[in-house]
Parts: sequence; C-alpha cells; structure tokens
Amino acid sequence: MTDANEEAPPIASLPTVLGALQDPIRLEMVRRLSNAGTAVRCGALYEVINKSTATHHFKILREAGVIERLVIDGQTCQRLRTADLDEALPGVLPPIIDAANRAQRT
Amino acid sequence: MTDANEEAPPIASLPTVLGALQDPIRLEMVRRLSNAGTAVRCGALYEVINKSTATHHFKILREAGVIERLVIDGQTCQRLRTADLDEALPGVLPPIIDAANRAQRT
Repeated sequence: MTDANEEAPPIASLPTVLGALQDPIRLEMVRRLSNAGTAVRCGALYEVINKSTATHHFKILREAGVIERLVIDGQTCQRLRTADLDEALPGVLPPIIDAANRAQRT
Repeated sequence: MTDANEEAPPIASLPTVLGALQDPIRLEMVRRLSNAGTAVRCGALYEVINKSTATHHFKILREAGVIERLVIDGQTCQRLRTADLDEALPGVLPPIIDAANRAQRT
C-alpha cells in the first residue's frame, strides 16, 4: 500500500472545497468514499460517466484537498482526507454527507 | 415590512445550494447576513462589485433558497433563510459560516 500522505497538498480555501463538492458527480464520489470509510477503487465511485471524465472530477477533488490517490495492490484507489478536512474546515463535511445520504434515499 | 415568506421558493438541492455558496462574493454575502442575524440592506452585503453584478449574485442565492428579498421602509434588503435551510439541510450552513469567519480573520 502506497502512503499518499507525504505528498498530499494542503486543503484548499473554503470556496474551492465547496466548488469541488457542488458538482453532483463529485458529491456522489465523496459520499461513497465517506460511507466506505476507507480507500475505494476508482471504478466503484461513479457510474454512467466515462473514465476520462471521472479522472477530471478526481483531479478537481484532489486539488481541493478533498481526496487523495493511492495505489493498493496495483489498483488505483481514492481516499477521503477526512482528518485533514476536519482540521482545516471543522464540521463542514459531515452534515453535507448526511444531506447527500438523505437525498439518495428519497 | 413586507413578509417575503409567502413567496419563498423551496430550498434547492444540496448541489445547487453548495453551488450558490462556493462563489467567494456570494459566500461573503451569506457570511455577513448570518453574522447580522437579521435582514440587511443590499448595499451592506458587498464591496468592489457593481450593483448589477450584486443583483446577479443575489438572484443565484435566492433561487437556491438561501436568501429572500424583502422591502423594509422602502429599502430592499436580503435575509438569510436560516430556519428553512436548517430544516432542508440540517447543520450544513453553520460550520460553513464558522469557516468563512475564521478565513476572514486570518
């Protein structure tokens, strides 16, 4: 397992993080990562869109500091930077995830 | 005082609300409204930008359900729909305001 933490950029500004989360596809990626509570292989984080579109969305999330990429057993995975996010923007993410989970159920 | 509640649209979806908040100018408008805790005349909610740009941003916030417009003593004001937001998206706004306040102080 590659530890991606060494190269993790700082969490971006609040507007940039909100901008990363406001896209429905990216919000769904983050929701799945949060619910998984661990690294998840890229392909399990989206449907419908193609791989290059997904790569674009992962990049925006990564540059905002929301997720990090790591390679586990040769598979590229994404992981939510939960602790870093909660330190930089305390309490911002959990209610957003809760609301996204509720929206998913309705 | 005109009660704007009668015509207030429903709070928009989570991505739309986050999209309304992710712009630095709109986030600052919402931060000032939240800190004021009451209706605020439009001109006190922004600097630098001109009135028509401000009107555009108010419209996006209003359509997302984040704010409502009301007229007090002939002056157009904006008010944060705090209770409606907290009912539709519980807990989402307060930590965003806290983070915005912290960013403002640094």
